[in-house]
Amino acid sequence: MVDHYTIFEQDNHIWIGESSYDPAFEAKTESLFALCNGNIGIRSVSMLPSLYGKRGLYASGLFHQAHPSEVTELVNCPDPVECRVTADGIKLSPDSPWLESYRREFCPDTAELRFSMIFGLPGKRRLEVRETRLVSFANARLILQKISLKSLAGDFERLELTSLLNGQSMNEGVSHFSEVICRVYDREVMHLEARLEEETLSLMQICCGNREEDGPPLYALFRRGISEQTALSLKEGEERIFLRCSSLMVRKRREDNIYEQREELKDAARKGFDFLQEKHRYFLRMHQKRCEYRIEGATLEERAILSFARYHLLGMMPWNRTDCSIASKGLTGEGYRGHVFWDTEIFILPFFSLHFAEQSRNLLIYRYHGLAGAREKAEQFRYQGAMYPWESAADGREETPRYAALNIHTGKANPVWSGLKEHHVGADIVYAIRQYVDETGDRSFLKEYGYEMVFEIAAFWVSRAVWDPDRKQRVILDIIGPDEYTEHIDNNAYTNYMAAFCVKLALEYLKEAEKEAPDICRRLKTEQQKTGWEQFLREIYLPVPNEDGIIPQDDTFLGKEELPDIRKYREAPVRQTVLRDYSRKQIEEMQVLKQADTVMLLNMFPTLFTPEVVKKNVRYYEARTIHDSSLSYCAHALACAAIGEKKLAWKYFQNSLHIDLNDRAPDSVDGIHGAAMGGIWNCMEQGFAGISFSGGVLSVNPHLPDHWKSVEVTLQVQGKPVLVKVTHTEVEVTTPTTEGDELAVAVGGTQAVLKDHLNLPL
Amino acid sequence: MVDHYTIFEQDNHIWIGESSYDPAFEAKTESLFALCNGNIGIRSVSMLPSLYGKRGLYASGLFHQAHPSEVTELVNCPDPVECRVTADGIKLSPDSPWLESYRREFCPDTAELRFSMIFGLPGKRRLEVRETRLVSFANARLILQKISLKSLAGDFERLELTSLLNGQSMNEGVSHFSEVICRVYDREVMHLEARLEEETLSLMQICCGNREEDGPPLYALFRRGISEQTALSLKEGEERIFLRCSSLMVRKRREDNIYEQREELKDAARKGFDFLQEKHRYFLRMHQKRCEYRIEGATLEERAILSFARYHLLGMMPWNRTDCSIASKGLTGEGYRGHVFWDTEIFILPFFSLHFAEQSRNLLIYRYHGLAGAREKAEQFRYQGAMYPWESAADGREETPRYAALNIHTGKANPVWSGLKEHHVGADIVYAIRQYVDETGDRSFLKEYGYEMVFEIAAFWVSRAVWDPDRKQRVILDIIGPDEYTEHIDNNAYTNYMAAFCVKLALEYLKEAEKEAPDICRRLKTEQQKTGWEQFLREIYLPVPNEDGIIPQDDTFLGKEELPDIRKYREAPVRQTVLRDYSRKQIEEMQVLKQADTVMLLNMFPTLFTPEVVKKNVRYYEARTIHDSSLSYCAHALACAAIGEKKLAWKYFQNSLHIDLNDRAPDSVDGIHGAAMGGIWNCMEQGFAGISFSGGVLSVNPHLPDHWKSVEVTLQVQGKPVLVKVTHTEVEVTTPTTEGDELAVAVGGTQAVLKDHLNLPL
Repeated sequence: MVDHYTIFEQDNHIWIGESSYDPAFEAKTESLFALCNGNIGIRSVSMLPSLYGKRGLYASGLFHQAHPSEVTELVNCPDPVECRVTADGIKLSPDSPWLESYRREFCPDTAELRFSMIFGLPGKRRLEVRETRLVSFANARLILQKISLKSLAGDFERLELTSLLNGQSMNEGVSHFSEVICRVYDREVMHLEARLEEETLSLMQICCGNREEDGPPLYALFRRGISEQTALSLKEGEERIFLRCSSLMVRKRREDNIYEQREELKDAARKGFDFLQEKHRYFLRMHQKRCEYRIEGATLEERAILSFARYHLLGMMPWNRTDCSIASKGLTGEGYRGHVFWDTEIFILPFFSLHFAEQSRNLLIYRYHGLAGAREKAEQFRYQGAMYPWESAADGREETPRYAALNIHTGKANPVWSGLKEHHVGADIVYAIRQYVDETGDRSFLKEYGYEMVFEIAAFWVSRAVWDPDRKQRVILDIIGPDEYTEHIDNNAYTNYMAAFCVKLALEYLKEAEKEAPDICRRLKTEQQKTGWEQFLREIYLPVPNEDGIIPQDDTFLGKEELPDIRKYREAPVRQTVLRDYSRKQIEEMQVLKQADTVMLLNMFPTLFTPEVVKKNVRYYEARTIHDSSLSYCAHALACAAIGEKKLAWKYFQNSLHIDLNDRAPDSVDGIHGAAMGGIWNCMEQGFAGISFSGGVLSVNPHLPDHWKSVEVTLQVQGKPVLVKVTHTEVEVTTPTTEGDELAVAVGGTQAVLKDHLNLPL
Repeated sequence: MVDHYTIFEQDNHIWIGESSYDPAFEAKTESLFALCNGNIGIRSVSMLPSLYGKRGLYASGLFHQAHPSEVTELVNCPDPVECRVTADGIKLSPDSPWLESYRREFCPDTAELRFSMIFGLPGKRRLEVRETRLVSFANARLILQKISLKSLAGDFERLELTSLLNGQSMNEGVSHFSEVICRVYDREVMHLEARLEEETLSLMQICCGNREEDGPPLYALFRRGISEQTALSLKEGEERIFLRCSSLMVRKRREDNIYEQREELKDAARKGFDFLQEKHRYFLRMHQKRCEYRIEGATLEERAILSFARYHLLGMMPWNRTDCSIASKGLTGEGYRGHVFWDTEIFILPFFSLHFAEQSRNLLIYRYHGLAGAREKAEQFRYQGAMYPWESAADGREETPRYAALNIHTGKANPVWSGLKEHHVGADIVYAIRQYVDETGDRSFLKEYGYEMVFEIAAFWVSRAVWDPDRKQRVILDIIGPDEYTEHIDNNAYTNYMAAFCVKLALEYLKEAEKEAPDICRRLKTEQQKTGWEQFLREIYLPVPNEDGIIPQDDTFLGKEELPDIRKYREAPVRQTVLRDYSRKQIEEMQVLKQADTVMLLNMFPTLFTPEVVKKNVRYYEARTIHDSSLSYCAHALACAAIGEKKLAWKYFQNSLHIDLNDRAPDSVDGIHGAAMGGIWNCMEQGFAGISFSGGVLSVNPHLPDHWKSVEVTLQVQGKPVLVKVTHTEVEVTTPTTEGDELAVAVGGTQAVLKDHLNLPL
């Protein structure tokens, strides 16, 4: 249960709030309540200076490498929200002893953030400083702050409100800008330009609310920044309201129009906060309508966290762009340097596939742009085809740091093995392509992008496997599966099955591709490759359950010792504490998982094994999993829900709900867990409501938790809204009836579709 | 009078203290109480995180340019003093509401800083956190912190003390390091290496005080940094003391020995705080003995500020190095980017000349290394000889930013005229050379360095002046003198006289140089230049007092309007407020000075004019001076003292005492005013005590302020200590008597020496 955050409803919206200022939670809450519209994301840092936070503004796809020794990372942009308030010379901050009360509240339904701070000042005076902040869903560049200064008691002779555009921002000690230049247009618009090698950030701001009696605002330059100061007096009971409109544009070319940005901002400022807020809410509602949900019987917390997950999913999507994807932390922090992992395809993309299929398409096109990098990586490791990077950034090339931090004592660099040995990401992309095409029937996507990716990834797997003369089968050696606590293993079940799936799909697609895209087939010489693919499928080793029904995670896993006292690490308030007691080498020699591995396989091919085998394996592996990755609980929950193991599913779902919204202050400080957001949603929609869409058939096979009475979800199937309502006993599907355009619906057990598809000898 | 700082004596030492935490003064006090030993300087920032400070550690001569668009600047090095203390989960900071009392105190006599903070925590518990900090005068790399944690009331279950080496340091948003690498040696020494293009900073730290019951310290890496955490419990009344020893080394070459640095640090840590403190004090005393002083009748404040000035002078000198000089802010802040100005030669060097002549020599050799850059600059501007840069850094090349900030509204760049038009710095260097040689008789310096500089600077001036056919004299047009509020003037009196002085000295030196350093004369073709120099001296226009006795500051100054209401700007709590009401162009058209200009001339050649003329001019120009430069009051004080204008001298001296130690919170935030430190000392020693040394004769011509009974000063004259004691009526000079080695002493009026020397037709 969550103690630190309170959840309440107001005007039919859910709010999540903090009712006191706790330095320990500062950075965490900044991530959780970050405002993101897919184009930009801003951490929910106080506008007043504060000690323990981490100011951060990020723009989708804006990456930069500061030095050859540093990694390419999501750039922390100049800060437009900071401002300073002094009351008769006293500087105000949430850290200051004058703070009397503090509230920070976030509404995941309206994507709005509000602060209220009351300061008790000398002379029994009380000043309230409030802020409502939003990042507009109507205008992707726009950040709004409505600021109120109100005297609750006593008069204030001189209040100074200083708004800053601050280009001294950095990513943990690394500043990315080669130059920052500031000016003021028309004595109204502050402008900051920050130069990177290729892009220039153009940040503008207008502050409204100045009155004639305040005198003109005072602009001042400081290094890499500019400020605007307004001085005012305030009588007891009086309130003054200011509006700060900021606009962030990434200029790729000099010609990108700053004039237009300025006029747009001026126009916004003229229209005022209420108008802009309405417009923001309207556009957000348009998005939400495509993923509406209602759960009868759900607790307030469950509803809040589902709303929270949906908000973050909408906030991390770079809408209508194909040049970037979704970072593992969305736009809420600098964790993993803003890189893109398999999280996107496997955990996040399913939400978009069922509600915003055109955006899934964009995310997959981003991967298509990464083909060049994937081919390079394959060549570098002497494989065929396309070997997708474990982490990617702007151009889709491998961005995994080659070395993690030095060994603190020996000074030797620790290689990051995932970049070298964790290869399943390509297969995950193929899985996502298959899912997207299956749901949309989008052949044009296949012709333009899909075939090429699938064939090249299949080619990689064929070259990756080697012949084992003892087994007389093809094996995949020295690899890392999803579980990152076992780094150098042979025949990871997840990886082997996924590789087989890729090659099988390639062969399947090849038939149509030969007609639909003969040039691609010719270029990739698929004719010559085909026999190799078929041979691979015949020979690839696919682990089967042993006499106890357990699928071996890899060749040696089941023979290892168990980790004594795993509970200690599962319950520790900080993740990965096991690494304090054991070396990585020791951990590799034990039956201990960081995260779902074989369970992921059960998850993605839910009917590949019998429900009994699934259940046994989920239990077996779960007992050995520390869940030190945010990808873990939701995977277990989904796997269990799919086979109707409601109680287990429920337990894991509860845990996954608290991946971010928990009382562990160090969690999420560098960003929310994007995959968990997708996982929570998928568990509700695909797990409990049992919804899937495949081969033109909408399948609904619900396993609701006992206390849920019903779930209603609006899907977007092939461009049309479809309302699915399930209870414990009934399934109701409503589609807009258009003549000759019917939706096939199957109820119960229909996830067998995927089994048929894989159709491998077991 | 100073209200914010309290001054008191303890154990025969003077202390300057703050007795409460005031965010407004945070950055200022950090500069004032900065600990500097000439090699490194560290701002007196709280070891606990704080909101309003500016952490800074600087190493003499360590400059870097981060980007072509940024200026070369003194690098803010990784921070070794920061640490974090949490008491049962509560993070402590001076900003936190738990702070009950706060003291920060600095002893300029022992160069030690101490903090005491008491936190009142939940459960009626009180924790005292104390720190004594010093930067060793015994070991130039060493920073020491003695940290005490004491429970004044209640028990603490878990106190965490986390020591950081933090390489995320930056200069106002600019990080200089291309790479930062951390490790731990022998589970004891934390090590951080920060790479610049040419140098590498090696920062090491040992923390002692851990007990067995605390368990081993926990080391952790973070980006660009490393930390060491100790957890302990504390019963009521119990105190725990920790010692942090840090060592900063600048490695110019890979071979610079890190092993040695580590062993030295280990050795220091073993010896313990008391031993290291004693050693530090001993070495500091050795320096102080060469500039001992005693003033009977002086107020506590006067004594404190003189001690403060002497401390900072000793702290800013890069002892025994010739590769760097003294920044205008010493090593206390980033003002003027750590650049070297004429401040060093004219305001700071006189102190060293009378007490540490060998260090003056080093500072002048730094200028010799800058000859290449000065020749380049002359060539660039099509002049002859050496044109010294207005601002210089590591290699002595011109570092003045070409453009100041953009005009905030038009977006056009404002050129920095001082780099282009303020040319007197070369003449100031010649003046300092003359002073050094005159005091030491060091012919070898002249042969190796001095002649070449003097001849090249003289050559510059000869080429700089042009023939005025109307005046039938040589004139120096379109120049900036010391007063920077008049930017484009002709025949600045100070500059013209100084130019004449240079050429005259060159001619004088030439006679001996032809014998002592014929190769230099040959190389510089002095034989050919000589006639030109003589002609220049005959023809140069040197302004004389008008009928009212006023020397015109330049050709047009006396004909301009006066600035109405100059008082407003003189009394403003912030400097340069005149620029808010008037444009630079408007200011140029008025009789208003930023700082001493003609008064500087009177100061440097005190007997060039009659005392009546001096008095008139000081009064005339002072009334028109805003004193917006820290170089101004001390110049006026010294000029007045020299002519026996005791009251005026006293008034300006008082003002100069408060250049840093005042109640104006925005002053000094980016570093102390180095020139003012020299100015204060010079005024006491050369002004009031009337001490000067020239041509082998020690002159003493005291004009003590009425309330001072006597001044005793220890000089170092030609390698021997000389004690001078003056009262209102007597002068007493004590020298160690060595046979055949006598000191000529003249009492009263002897500053005529300089007049004789200049000997120009007036």
